[in-house]
Amino acid sequence: MTDVPALAAFPFRRTFPTRWNDNDMFGHVNNTIYYAAMDTTATYWFGQLAGLDPFSSEWIAVVVSSNCRFIESAVYPDVIEVGMRSKHLGRTSLSWEFALVRQSDGALLATGEFVHVIIDRTGARRPIAIPESLRALITETMVAAAD
Amino acid sequence: MTDVPALAAFPFRRTFPTRWNDNDMFGHVNNTIYYAAMDTTATYWFGQLAGLDPFSSEWIAVVVSSNCRFIESAVYPDVIEVGMRSKHLGRTSLSWEFALVRQSDGALLATGEFVHVIIDRTGARRPIAIPESLRALITETMVAAAD
Amino acid sequence: MTDVPALAAFPFRRTFPTRWNDNDMFGHVNNTIYYAAMDTTATYWFGQLAGLDPFSSEWIAVVVSSNCRFIESAVYPDVIEVGMRSKHLGRTSLSWEFALVRQSDGALLATGEFVHVIIDRTGARRPIAIPESLRALITETMVAAAD
Amino acid sequence: MTDVPALAAFPFRRTFPTRWNDNDMFGHVNNTIYYAAMDTTATYWFGQLAGLDPFSSEWIAVVVSSNCRFIESAVYPDVIEVGMRSKHLGRTSLSWEFALVRQSDGALLATGEFVHVIIDRTGARRPIAIPESLRALITETMVAAAD
Repeated sequence: MTDVPALAAFPFRRTFPTRWNDNDMFGHVNNTIYYAAMDTTATYWFGQLAGLDPFSSEWIAVVVSSNCRFIESAVYPDVIEVGMRSKHLGRTSLSWEFALVRQSDGALLATGEFVHVIIDRTGARRPIAIPESLRALITETMVAAAD
Repeated sequence: MTDVPALAAFPFRRTFPTRWNDNDMFGHVNNTIYYAAMDTTATYWFGQLAGLDPFSSEWIAVVVSSNCRFIESAVYPDVIEVGMRSKHLGRTSLSWEFALVRQSDGALLATGEFVHVIIDRTGARRPIAIPESLRALITETMVAAAD
Repeated sequence: MTDVPALAAFPFRRTFPTRWNDNDMFGHVNNTIYYAAMDTTATYWFGQLAGLDPFSSEWIAVVVSSNCRFIESAVYPDVIEVGMRSKHLGRTSLSWEFALVRQSDGALLATGEFVHVIIDRTGARRPIAIPESLRALITETMVAAAD
Repeated sequence: MTDVPALAAFPFRRTFPTRWNDNDMFGHVNNTIYYAAMDTTATYWFGQLAGLDPFSSEWIAVVVSSNCRFIESAVYPDVIEVGMRSKHLGRTSLSWEFALVRQSDGALLATGEFVHVIIDRTGARRPIAIPESLRALITETMVAAAD
């Protein structure tokens, strides 16, 4: 698994404990839960670190696409460690890479991507240029160190 | 089961199809899903029949307690029929009874109750008297016929 | 709120972090999530402390009823601390009390109860007497100290 | 949107009603729910049409990757119509395309893909060649007509 970046290469990390009802009838965590883990991590980053408030911010971030590659199954009560980093910064859109790792043994469970577009919340709700403060925050804190 | 009212005694009924990921590892629909079925049915009634809009109404209904008695298991892809009726109308609070029935064979899966309190949405967010229009709507349409 | 037992009176406690999609359109954690918190806590206790394996145990515990009283709203990213203790031990059934507390300020969010019945997993799947080892474990570790 | 295939080009279709708690705090259906809609549709097809039983089949289908492009928001109580068709049949893996359409006005909400790999359930749980009966069923019934 030499091509898999370690969690250390993800500047932002959050813990995502599984729940009993995350397990489906196959006896492992349902595939939708990995998206909930990435969505919760990204929303936490936007809300707590980038100052996004869904009811008062000038801009909000909307998910326009996502994907996930499932590598190994999680089973409740596994705790998932989610790593997040910037992949690409465009003019109005930005993309993220995630790694989902089982806390108990460090096994890579999944990798995924989210693409957000920035829109104005109160006006036309159309894509706008990524605010400079957001761009700077991402560039300075969310890009993996060159390796 | 002579003490269990038939679904016909529930004036408001909605269909609630199960989803694959509703099944937990025991191979049947997780107990939280029955609450989602009752919550979705009640919210639909308030929103579509009683004119409640969470963002503009003068009053909203808040759940203060709920309970469920689980009788038989549902398994995806079962479709659940949810019946809802008024149980009690107080001054500021009101309660509902639900019956959850399996569509394929009519088996009673669960019965439950929700208690809502009416609060003013924009002011002190304190309990207020049930609006007369709401009280009339419930009295006229949501009470089971005497039997 | 002098009649509300402190979390310290609950011998078993688990942390339940909320997720972004736990919040519903009212801007707070949906009522079904409180049941997921209690269900996950109870299932963890049965699986990790009482040795219940859904695929190999002689007995399993089935939820026959539950209820919840909602006191204050949680909002993502609140972390919920769940306390659990034995309420009653019958011959084939047993009940539990839960308290849900917001980690950041200790506010009591909800209290609830689950009633389980013990059934034989592989035979008639009928209620059986609570195994002595389970009864002893609960009596010795899951009963609140007299106060 | 001339490049978007109509739902008629999807041989298998299922209705997926939204639930109140599918809506997140942004006031629309959370992005994970679109994956639940695709997962539920695919699992239904495998279980009801292709004879897959998670507890007794010789083979099972495991999701190895998925993606979704979000075009327009659904809001509860929208009903989503999910269309599903074969995209590619490999030796051990197969991929599917989905279209999610709002029932009330036919608006395309999202498109997505799932890739499954077929594994033997009871043996080494390793990828195996797609069974001929499954391959034939897909070829005959799940491929969009040439257009």
